[in-house]
Amino acid sequence: MKPVNVGLLGIGTVGGGVHAVLARNAEEISRRAGRPIRIAIVADKNLEQARNLTRNACPITDDAFAVVDDPAVDVVAELIGGYGVARELALRAIHNGKHVVTANKALLAMHGNEIFAAARQKGVIVAFEAAVAGGIPIIKALREGLAANRIEWAAGIINGTTNFILSEMRDKGISFAEALKEAQRLGYAEADPTFDIEGVDAAHKATLIAATAFGIPIQFEKAYVEGITRLEAIDIRYAEQLGYRVKLLGIAKRRADGVELRVHPALVPAKRLIANVEGAMNAVLVKADAVGATLYYGKGAGAEPTASAVIADLVDVARAATTDPGNRVPHLAFQPDQLHDLPVLPITEAKTACYLRLRVEDRPGALADITRILADQEISIDAILQREPEEGEGETDVIMLTHRCKEKQADAAIRKIEALAAVVGKVTRLRLEDLQ
Amino acid sequence: MKPVNVGLLGIGTVGGGVHAVLARNAEEISRRAGRPIRIAIVADKNLEQARNLTRNACPITDDAFAVVDDPAVDVVAELIGGYGVARELALRAIHNGKHVVTANKALLAMHGNEIFAAARQKGVIVAFEAAVAGGIPIIKALREGLAANRIEWAAGIINGTTNFILSEMRDKGISFAEALKEAQRLGYAEADPTFDIEGVDAAHKATLIAATAFGIPIQFEKAYVEGITRLEAIDIRYAEQLGYRVKLLGIAKRRADGVELRVHPALVPAKRLIANVEGAMNAVLVKADAVGATLYYGKGAGAEPTASAVIADLVDVARAATTDPGNRVPHLAFQPDQLHDLPVLPITEAKTACYLRLRVEDRPGALADITRILADQEISIDAILQREPEEGEGETDVIMLTHRCKEKQADAAIRKIEALAAVVGKVTRLRLEDLQ
Repeated sequence: MKPVNVGLLGIGTVGGGVHAVLARNAEEISRRAGRPIRIAIVADKNLEQARNLTRNACPITDDAFAVVDDPAVDVVAELIGGYGVARELALRAIHNGKHVVTANKALLAMHGNEIFAAARQKGVIVAFEAAVAGGIPIIKALREGLAANRIEWAAGIINGTTNFILSEMRDKGISFAEALKEAQRLGYAEADPTFDIEGVDAAHKATLIAATAFGIPIQFEKAYVEGITRLEAIDIRYAEQLGYRVKLLGIAKRRADGVELRVHPALVPAKRLIANVEGAMNAVLVKADAVGATLYYGKGAGAEPTASAVIADLVDVARAATTDPGNRVPHLAFQPDQLHDLPVLPITEAKTACYLRLRVEDRPGALADITRILADQEISIDAILQREPEEGEGETDVIMLTHRCKEKQADAAIRKIEALAAVVGKVTRLRLEDLQ
Repeated sequence: MKPVNVGLLGIGTVGGGVHAVLARNAEEISRRAGRPIRIAIVADKNLEQARNLTRNACPITDDAFAVVDDPAVDVVAELIGGYGVARELALRAIHNGKHVVTANKALLAMHGNEIFAAARQKGVIVAFEAAVAGGIPIIKALREGLAANRIEWAAGIINGTTNFILSEMRDKGISFAEALKEAQRLGYAEADPTFDIEGVDAAHKATLIAATAFGIPIQFEKAYVEGITRLEAIDIRYAEQLGYRVKLLGIAKRRADGVELRVHPALVPAKRLIANVEGAMNAVLVKADAVGATLYYGKGAGAEPTASAVIADLVDVARAATTDPGNRVPHLAFQPDQLHDLPVLPITEAKTACYLRLRVEDRPGALADITRILADQEISIDAILQREPEEGEGETDVIMLTHRCKEKQADAAIRKIEALAAVVGKVTRLRLEDLQ
């Protein structure tokens, strides 16, 4: 069969990985795909680096628009990132009738509805396995492998930087700032790590997971996003004593009245497999009605893991290119005329169990006042851990785990607890996910 | 689009699950598939039960051949099991130009080459996601998700019965016989559990994994198959003390000189995620050159988890039915004219680390003799655990972990060690897989 001609936009880390893997595994890949997948042209601003990487195996240009306009290109692999020029390039490639493969979660979280609509109109494919959890074939699992199921929820460790930082904080008992520095030194965090540590990257991915799992439009603007920057080492220690690990989770959960879409640190029972995903690794746990719980684990970033997903998409596109669009796997798993308008709920409506840490003066009746406030908000207590105050300390930490309640109930209770005379300073609240 | 008409062969546990899930999730499935997937006719010997299950929603027959000959049937779902009549039915369905979806690992491990060749000739699809690891979409991951990679090895907990038994033996310190009884009582083991506990079922699945991972023909007859029936509680305890768990693994490993295809109990470092897969759960760990290690976890058996995979295949078949066969995903991941004749190696050529347990008389020079024999076979020792002999005992257990060596070197060393005067009885040998 005739080779598939790929126009590669960007030959940095991921683009370089795609080039290297396509070259190294050319035989293995065409044994599977039934045709060679070859890079026909590369666009990169850094012509020098692009020439060194490709060793003159293909034409190179610094004009990405020339690639998306090139009639010899069958598929455009958009590996530039961001959502400015990347959006323009993707839309122009689609307009030119070319399929697009992208690793760009930000682009799809921000402009996915527009891009998929344009692709539908032109009858082309936009594939994005690499946009969520790097090399783990989680989009394929959600769209195809679990097609029999009503998916109930998915919870994922989908940002390697923050998982590395949390693993370091737990292992070494160090602060967030120290762990971030270590992550930057080892190349797990970027010089400006904001998107990772503030949870934005994970929220982009969780948004795409929610859309493909439930058949709803992409609604990044409704996601609740909380990062790990305010997490304290002491809470990781207390969580451990109570049998939990703290992980940054991206959660998409379907309820009768709407969808919860949220990213935040959460206590997870230490005995769960996903609680033991350490370092920069990713994992997504999916709960579905027929199959039950399934988990997908692997590297969520890096040149070759991401390239693995990009190339898998290129092979899929090569096969599906000649298929009637109605017989292709829909972009967001569900047929475009079958999306539901189930609302994404505000975080105040989310239901989670809570971990509460309070600094309490050692005086009679303090605990009674606190538990009364919780009872008034219909929040029941699952466990209390109270340290004996040290000699002459006069204050102590009280840790409480609650049963599931609505976020707004917890908010109201926390406000009242903080107003108690015996409670010193703010209450620290973390959410707790049983993931059963 | 027009509905897909499924002819269901067998409405026992799995067939009943397929029927129930198709009915319950009809809307969710057709929102994804773009057309209804409906059971057009059911064949089962037990007409009474079939009628109760289907509640007269579709015709029922006790003649399975009438279903594979029925012109109204688009896809045959073979859920009878075994490889007698199931083989005849699959071949006749193919001959009649029908696609086949099957959960039958025994059938494919024994007759897969014949069945896939027949399907190729007639241009139909034979899909078998449900045959390996139940509801986990591992065949899809191997064939499509990891298509960019040169797969190096796969190691799986792919039999729930034995994993349940091993979990019980470890948790409760009980013998194999006791744990088997418990598994039977709870429905995790059949009345005749031979296929499970002797490793045959796992070997069927490992054979299919090897073929799809490496692009080699199905060669069940060359698999090395060792079950868990001779496993002693004491070795599980010693393994634990050394930081390992004992798991029944199905292993497919590519080497330059051939493929290792083997099922046997193995020590696995307790810190590996796969070592913490407990009870009847399954997991497959895949090592590939670009993506690195990925792991897939879920329920490997049961009515609805298996149905989840069967129905995912039905959706795939519905989509690919109109596709030119050359653009479909090849049955065994690689194009049929691109299979390699890399030989499956005999177990004597397999390379693994070893766990050795010896009963040794407490006399000078005994350990020196043993280590000399290992050194002569070029086997290096990684760790030794020697219990102090109890008062008046005169004998003690010596546990050794070796570095990787060829099976035949270990065999030779064990024979010589057993011949030593200071060594009492047989040497217990288990293989050890680092899975790094």
